Formats: sequence, structure tokens, C-alpha cells
Amino acid sequence: MPDLSPRHSLAPRHGGALTDVAERYGVPLKDWLDLSTGINPHPYPLSAISQADFHRLPDPAALAALIGTARTAYGVPAQSTVAAVPGSDFALRLLPLLAPTGDVAILSPTYSGHAEAWRAAGRMVWPVATLEEGVRTAPIVVLVNPNNPDGRSIQPEELIATARTVAARGGLLVVDEAFGDIAPALTVLPHSAGERMVVLRSFGKFYGLAGLRLGFVIGPDDLVGRMRDLVGDWPVSGPAITIGRQALADSAWQIAARKRLLTARVLLEALLTKAGLEIVGETDLFVLIRSPRSIAVHESLVRDGIWTRIFADQPDRIRIGLPPDDGFERLAKALARIA
Amino acid sequence: MPDLSPRHSLAPRHGGALTDVAERYGVPLKDWLDLSTGINPHPYPLSAISQADFHRLPDPAALAALIGTARTAYGVPAQSTVAAVPGSDFALRLLPLLAPTGDVAILSPTYSGHAEAWRAAGRMVWPVATLEEGVRTAPIVVLVNPNNPDGRSIQPEELIATARTVAARGGLLVVDEAFGDIAPALTVLPHSAGERMVVLRSFGKFYGLAGLRLGFVIGPDDLVGRMRDLVGDWPVSGPAITIGRQALADSAWQIAARKRLLTARVLLEALLTKAGLEIVGETDLFVLIRSPRSIAVHESLVRDGIWTRIFADQPDRIRIGLPPDDGFERLAKALARIA
Repeated sequence: MPDLSPRHSLAPRHGGALTDVAERYGVPLKDWLDLSTGINPHPYPLSAISQADFHRLPDPAALAALIGTARTAYGVPAQSTVAAVPGSDFALRLLPLLAPTGDVAILSPTYSGHAEAWRAAGRMVWPVATLEEGVRTAPIVVLVNPNNPDGRSIQPEELIATARTVAARGGLLVVDEAFGDIAPALTVLPHSAGERMVVLRSFGKFYGLAGLRLGFVIGPDDLVGRMRDLVGDWPVSGPAITIGRQALADSAWQIAARKRLLTARVLLEALLTKAGLEIVGETDLFVLIRSPRSIAVHESLVRDGIWTRIFADQPDRIRIGLPPDDGFERLAKALARIA
Repeated sequence: MPDLSPRHSLAPRHGGALTDVAERYGVPLKDWLDLSTGINPHPYPLSAISQADFHRLPDPAALAALIGTARTAYGVPAQSTVAAVPGSDFALRLLPLLAPTGDVAILSPTYSGHAEAWRAAGRMVWPVATLEEGVRTAPIVVLVNPNNPDGRSIQPEELIATARTVAARGGLLVVDEAFGDIAPALTVLPHSAGERMVVLRSFGKFYGLAGLRLGFVIGPDDLVGRMRDLVGDWPVSGPAITIGRQALADSAWQIAARKRLLTARVLLEALLTKAGLEIVGETDLFVLIRSPRSIAVHESLVRDGIWTRIFADQPDRIRIGLPPDDGFERLAKALARIA
């Protein structure tokens, strides 16, 4: 019987981290269904990776080709600079070293890494509820779009207007589009020509390859060019370059994946609703529920070897990632027990 | 016939970069024998990597285990902090953001990335010929040990004494042990308890997996702990963690690899000497030759599809990496044509 005493209900820093979870509850790693992250459960195939990708230093021409492919895939304006980075989390942690001085307003609640990074760089961080409040509060405004964990979305026009207001005061708008691939109409990039904003893109979530560590930073050359110089000539691995080039150009896979994720999300919501859980947000990579019994729900799922994401600052909420096709039945049975 | 006009003899920024080379000379990528880097031609086997290493977010417990394995493998004192980074080149580019203020003396000639990184951070960089000159010149002293490209070695006792002198003045000694695995007696790490120095280790060179992007930064917590925070919770890829844990603990492979590299280096030196080339430096991962005909030698090898490393600041030298076992005969034939 797993130990479910209260000290074990402490919310972890991030999703994933399953080795500690397995040890804590005495359930072998392989027996867990991990729904604690927002990662596509059906990854892009890895067949293009060769032994040489691991052996050789990543080739600068291949890196340039990856960046070119990302430009096309993301609709990046010609005048913007693109830097490839080993994960968008990595980039957001370096960004405070390059950004203009001043306090930072973060549209909250959201991914905790943003506040951590700015605080580590000695900045005052202000959680704000709306873009307008952000603009009034600090010269630097940060948001995730669509947002994690609640899926809140802001249209590109509003972001462009905000970027101009902020830039006119010498500030900066940072738009983290970590989940942008599932909502292409929402991305601000095609509208961002000449705007003073930095956009972050994550590769691993939509393509189901979070272990590859690949992301992109896009924006004005005086900021992103410095980021590119800072990460050096070999910022990402050989396998990341090979798979990134292939996957970002594979629009057939992208379209099929979006359809499959949408279907899975609708099915997940149906299961959660049937179990009497209130859905308060979603993207096609995760669903956020609210429940006065959230800890009990989380722990009941734990007893069935299902790991979900709880948050220290939002104790009544649980974020649930999409199960793989063969995980729905197991989740349905577990949810039946909590209903 | 490849175009060998003088403009094509310009030394590139680094070794590798073979896509541009192949295009420049009109020889397909697969037909080149790349001896332009100092990477073990016989890589550590990749069989431990699983699909899950690419799919999941790297697990913090697995990252901690990797760092523990690196501590043991490198003989790191308990009080030193170790950060895993996506390549030691990456780390040396971040280091100027964390190091004490002041000018930087670099034991030269050496790997160009060091000077680039400090200059990019606005530091004055002074190339120096000896450690003593370095200590007299600047508060921060940087060296590569054994050195690239000439193999010059400095004993740990001398480095410790230098670290103390530099630290007493509020400075810092940076020891890049990128090629340290082939000369375990030379590593300063087991002697560095409580010393104020930062040591860089590269995984990719000795283990022949430069595309994996894995390295370590080791030193006092006030510097390296900040580096660790800066690179975040997922600094290296899932495959890098899995292979790093296995390879750094595999002393049987390490011993066999050192023997094989030594044998290959001795054979390479014999071939070069037979061709009338003067050997002016080496480690067991590369040999440095000097020749008044260096450009002609480099281009003659190019005609045989063999790519070696020339340097803009040392035009009479060529660095030649170890061929794989099946590359020696091809190199021998090519060298016979230049003799």
C-alpha cells in the first residue's frame, strides 16, 4: 500500500520527475501512467537519427538549415533573428541576462520557471491578472500563450498592441509560445515584423520529444543575436538538428497530430466530466480541472499508478495530460473509482 | 577537380563543419575522411538509449545520478559543486557572466572559444605564453590542460599554486580539461578541494560523442551553483544522461579506449614522420605538425578527401585527428603523395 500521508502531497517543482514519485510510493517506474506533463504521448518518429548525429560535432550548415526550417514552420518575419537553444526553458532562464533593466510583470498563474528566472537575476516580479495590469505594473511583461496550466489565450492583435506600448517605454514583451503548435492561429510570429518582442517556441511538447531538448528564441537581433552568441556554435545536439529539420517541415504529420490530440483531449474531457470533475481550462495537450477534493482525487489516481500535476499555489486544481491511446481505459477505470 | 584557389584556404572557425567543406570542394559529404577534430573515432556504444529518453522530460533523479557518476569518474572533492551542461563549449561561454570582474589572461595559442567568450562579455583578453606571465597580467587566468592544439601539459601542483595566488587577489583560475580523459594523471580535480578554481570537462571528445552535447563545470558553489541555476532543471538531453551515466562508470571501456587511442596516435605520428612532417605537439586525440609547406600539405590532403585543421593565427601548423582503424591506409597513401 503506498504511503499517502500528507507530507507526500506536496506539489513538486514540475511535472515528470517520475523516479522520485516511483520511489516515494513504492511503485516501479514502468508501472506508472505519467499524465503530469503536457507532452504529446505519440512522439514524432526517430528513424532519421544516425550514429553520426551522436558522433560528430553538430555541423553549422545543418544548424543553419534547422533554423531556416523553423523560420518557415513558425512564419518568422525576415527581419527577426532566430536562435536554436537546448529547450525553451533554457532560453527563458538566460533571457533576464539580456533583457532591458526593470521590474517584470508576469500574467499569472503560469509556468513557474519565468518568475524563478527573473528573480534569480535580481528582478522584482509582479504576478498580474491581465495584460493591461501588466503594462501598468512593469516595463517587462511576460506571458505564456496559450497559457499553462489554464489554456487562456490572447489574440495576436492584442499582443502586438501591447508590444508597441511596452516598447515605447523602453520595455519588452516576452511571449512564451511553448504550446503554440497546437494553436497555429494564435501565434504572434507572422505579425511580429519589426515589433520589439521576444517569442519562445518549444519543440519537445507538440512533437512528443521533450528529452531531445530543442527550442527557439525569436526576436530583434540586438537581443536574440546576443542569445545566439551566448549559446555558441553547437547549441543543440546532432539528433535534435536532424529530427528538428525533419519534423518542422513535415506538415502532414503536424496536421494528423493536431487532429489526434484534439480527439484525445475531447475524450479526456468527457471522461473527466463523467467523473464529476469541473473543467476550468485546456489546450489540446492538457486539461485543467478544479475540485474541492483535488488532493483526494490526485491520491486516488496515485493508488492506480496515475501521476498528475498539482500546484503549490493552486491547491484545488489538477492538470492532466493526454494519455496515450492505450492509457484511456486505465484512466477511465481509475476515474470511476473516484466518482 | 576541386577549386583550390587561395580564398579557399582560409582557416575555418572550428574543425568539423564538413557540409560547407564538401560543397566548397565539390566532394560528397560521405566521401570525406574528417581528421579536423580531436574526437575519438571509435565512439562509446549507444545501445542503452531508449525511445523514452527522447520522449520524456529528463528526470531530475537521473540527472543527479549522472552528476554523482561524474563526481566519481573525475575525482571531484565533496565540497565542490558540479553542473551538467550541454557541452563544455557552452559552459565556457556562460562563465564570463558569472566570474569576478577584470581582465583575462589566456595561455595561448589555444582553443579560440575562450577569447571569444570573454571578449563578447566586454573583457580585455591578453594572450600569454606562461602561467607566470598570466598571473602577472590579469586577475583571471584561463588555460587548457592538456592544451589544444599543441598538447602542452601543466602538472596539478603548479595549477594549485597558481589558483592560490590568483584567488588571493580576488581573481579566478579556469582550467579547461576538455581533453583530460586521455591523461588522468594530469587532472587537477582530485587536488582541488577548497581551491578557488573552475574546471571544465568535455564528455564528447574521449567518448567519441560530440553530437550528444554533454559537459561538466566543477568548482566553488558560489560560481558553479549559479551556473547550475542558470541552465535550469533540464540542462542536458535524456540520451546524454543515459549514455553519460553508463560511460563515465565504465572503467573497462575507458582503459581499453585509452590504449587504443595511444596505439593510434603512435601509428599516426609514424606516418607523419615518414612523410617528412615535423611533429610539434600531441595528445592521444590529435597530433600537431609544423611545415613551411603547410597550406600545400593541407590542400594535397583535401585532393584525397581528407580534411584537417589549419589555424588563421598559426599558418604553418596543421592539427590532425586520429583516423578510425579503416582510415589509416587511406591517410598513408595520401601522405605518400605529399612526401
